[in-house]
Amino acid sequence: MKRRKFLSISTLIGVSSYLSPSFLLSNPIKRSKLKLGFIGTGLRGQGMMRLATYRNDVDIPVICDIDDGMISKALKVLKNAGRPIPKVYKNGNEDFRNMLYNEDLDGVFIATPWEWHHPMSVAAMKAGKHVGTEVPAALTVADCWDLVNTSEKTGKFCMIMENVCYRRDVLAVLNMVRSGLFGELLHCQGGYQHDLRGVKFNNGLQPYGRGVEFGDKGYSESKWRTNHSVNRNGDLYPTHGLGPVSTMLNINHGNRMVYLTSTATQSRGLHNYIVQHGGPNHPNTSIDFKLGDIVTTVIKCANGQTIMLSHDTNSPRPYSLNFRIQGTKGLWMKDSNSIYIEGISPNDHRWESDEKYLEKYDHPLWKRFENEAKGSGHGGMDYFVFRAFIESMKRDIDPPLDVYDAASWSVISPLSEKSIRKNSTSIKIPDFTRGKWKISEPKFAINDIY
Amino acid sequence: MKRRKFLSISTLIGVSSYLSPSFLLSNPIKRSKLKLGFIGTGLRGQGMMRLATYRNDVDIPVICDIDDGMISKALKVLKNAGRPIPKVYKNGNEDFRNMLYNEDLDGVFIATPWEWHHPMSVAAMKAGKHVGTEVPAALTVADCWDLVNTSEKTGKFCMIMENVCYRRDVLAVLNMVRSGLFGELLHCQGGYQHDLRGVKFNNGLQPYGRGVEFGDKGYSESKWRTNHSVNRNGDLYPTHGLGPVSTMLNINHGNRMVYLTSTATQSRGLHNYIVQHGGPNHPNTSIDFKLGDIVTTVIKCANGQTIMLSHDTNSPRPYSLNFRIQGTKGLWMKDSNSIYIEGISPNDHRWESDEKYLEKYDHPLWKRFENEAKGSGHGGMDYFVFRAFIESMKRDIDPPLDVYDAASWSVISPLSEKSIRKNSTSIKIPDFTRGKWKISEPKFAINDIY
Repeated sequence: MKRRKFLSISTLIGVSSYLSPSFLLSNPIKRSKLKLGFIGTGLRGQGMMRLATYRNDVDIPVICDIDDGMISKALKVLKNAGRPIPKVYKNGNEDFRNMLYNEDLDGVFIATPWEWHHPMSVAAMKAGKHVGTEVPAALTVADCWDLVNTSEKTGKFCMIMENVCYRRDVLAVLNMVRSGLFGELLHCQGGYQHDLRGVKFNNGLQPYGRGVEFGDKGYSESKWRTNHSVNRNGDLYPTHGLGPVSTMLNINHGNRMVYLTSTATQSRGLHNYIVQHGGPNHPNTSIDFKLGDIVTTVIKCANGQTIMLSHDTNSPRPYSLNFRIQGTKGLWMKDSNSIYIEGISPNDHRWESDEKYLEKYDHPLWKRFENEAKGSGHGGMDYFVFRAFIESMKRDIDPPLDVYDAASWSVISPLSEKSIRKNSTSIKIPDFTRGKWKISEPKFAINDIY
Repeated sequence: MKRRKFLSISTLIGVSSYLSPSFLLSNPIKRSKLKLGFIGTGLRGQGMMRLATYRNDVDIPVICDIDDGMISKALKVLKNAGRPIPKVYKNGNEDFRNMLYNEDLDGVFIATPWEWHHPMSVAAMKAGKHVGTEVPAALTVADCWDLVNTSEKTGKFCMIMENVCYRRDVLAVLNMVRSGLFGELLHCQGGYQHDLRGVKFNNGLQPYGRGVEFGDKGYSESKWRTNHSVNRNGDLYPTHGLGPVSTMLNINHGNRMVYLTSTATQSRGLHNYIVQHGGPNHPNTSIDFKLGDIVTTVIKCANGQTIMLSHDTNSPRPYSLNFRIQGTKGLWMKDSNSIYIEGISPNDHRWESDEKYLEKYDHPLWKRFENEAKGSGHGGMDYFVFRAFIESMKRDIDPPLDVYDAASWSVISPLSEKSIRKNSTSIKIPDFTRGKWKISEPKFAINDIY
């Protein structure tokens, strides 16, 4: 850590907690070079693998998948980066267990279909590997507990790789929250408003085609993701909205989510899409999709705040993660790129552009790694979430987004399904920290390290 | 009805139901001059009274209030308009009953504190008067039923004077909905996001002063409105957001609201305001306000749709009724003045300005009465809601916003309070139409009459 950096951090307005030097002293690097395995080498796995090849502290001795086409694309990523050819585990759905048992690895990155995140994470921790898993980390309440129990028992961490927590505007707003700009937080909104019809369906040959096939006849995500829309009605994908607001609300670090309700609309969009693009006689028109087109979830927090999440993936609409962060002194609303802070905004009760606030409160991580992040996936945020995963392993410390985050964010899906099944009744949210939230200090993005 | 008007309506894109000629034939004017009494002559009553004086089909023979200051202001309104001096009932809280019993009136307009709307409306209908009541129409489930039962028994109507239903953009969007622009509706949002701290508190001398007094020491609304924030936790004021979306979702006319959940944040804003403007030792700092600063309510409809309402009156923020109207083909969002319609908007997944849509779908009522509405209260919408009230009485027909709307919109408050008391449990919403919603045709703003 150079002195220049230290100054730039400690002079951040009102952010006295960005103390990376003390962090560095108490969390020294224990391993300067890591061995990382990849389970799942589809499009997401390939993207993160490419990021890994940019780092000289990460070796990739082994990969695992069951799809020859995706494996050969992944091998090409490594070859193009001048990396050695890894060992490949590809012998069926359970071969990942052999990889975990046989190979000497510091950790694994998991980017497989949702239903595999939990069993692979648990198996990896039991085999002595740290875990970075794509979202969501698990699909049932029991599996969320299983992640927590396994991590506590094995001493291996399970990081939820929620990249949106590192989005530049999101981190700047977190910075504003910690600076007290909004006062005491009252209400946050987030969600996943993303027209996925072209992801849930394709022609079996390309990921974002115009076809209406899925499952065995689909390609890439449509092979597995779409079936969740057939069989489940709930907020299937809460973490992109919930992760960021959780860091702002100190969830699991002085606050926690206590109960929720979910309410779903009728299901129309996926059926309509099949009729529109496949014709009224296509066999998929007979499918009864359980997923309501828009699912609204409201969460109550122990410290009083509410969180409203929207899940909206079956309809034509512009992309939005629906962020709104509101406190006793003002609020930020992403959809209009606007902010209002009492006593600071020039006109009473009038929005102003958020632009200069985002610049002023730019997070130390982004200031430091702006150049490195450029060109990495999803506007740069993939760089940071991957970096945090690696830095945590190198120091052998809990990651900034840990197993309690993984469990408490992922559990929203099954609880939301349950609430909808019971006419939106209120459902209690488990305390996966078993009370430790009361004394735990925030650790996400508290410095420019991770 | 002139031929020119008829053509302009029937050529409205896709709106084949704007058939005012047949409406006029089957609903002839039965009384060309009305006698209207005013109960409540505070600021709101005075504003609506001024509108009444613009109409030569309305006489105001009698008014009722208990506040001499407000009465004299109201008399000045009438005097300035060249109207005769009315009889004044002012002999205590219950003197309105004498007025209703003694006077020969076609109807009464009620603009009193919330808790008086129900007893005054019921007494008026029992005395043979039609009713136009300010929002909300009642505060308890039983009182909502009482309104319905009394109206059905007496044959007198009880119109809920929800002016926002007539806001120009709202009526244009209703026009879009009926034209099928959004496809089948899925989800609507509305609410009341209005920093009322300067309304709930004042210095006892002027309505929007900087003081921190209320109740007996307050002036105008703070005299009574603020106590609802002391004693109740729920969506206290749902109708500005709910009324408009109800008309779009055909609530009580082919659709109905089935259940809801409500969740409230902690209560901070009112206390903070007192400390800020009255000092930490002001006696009002010891008041424990029950009302959570932000209350989020989610309603499920019989036809599948969801409605999200926000109630947010204690915090610094720009005014917004939070409208969003979303269907299978696209959506409108007020906060960004934007719209997206698949296949029509020029760029896939990109918002465009709503401006030209609002112009193209301008409602026949606004086209016809634009000049008359200008300068009337609240951007013109007061003109229309008052006009509808008067036209309904002249024809002796049910108003476009009737007692079933009054009951089903107003009941959201007590049900929301109940849900919050029970940790956001789901609460059933009564069917005040007793099944008639299944066969009732929409009647709000279906022509350019009312």
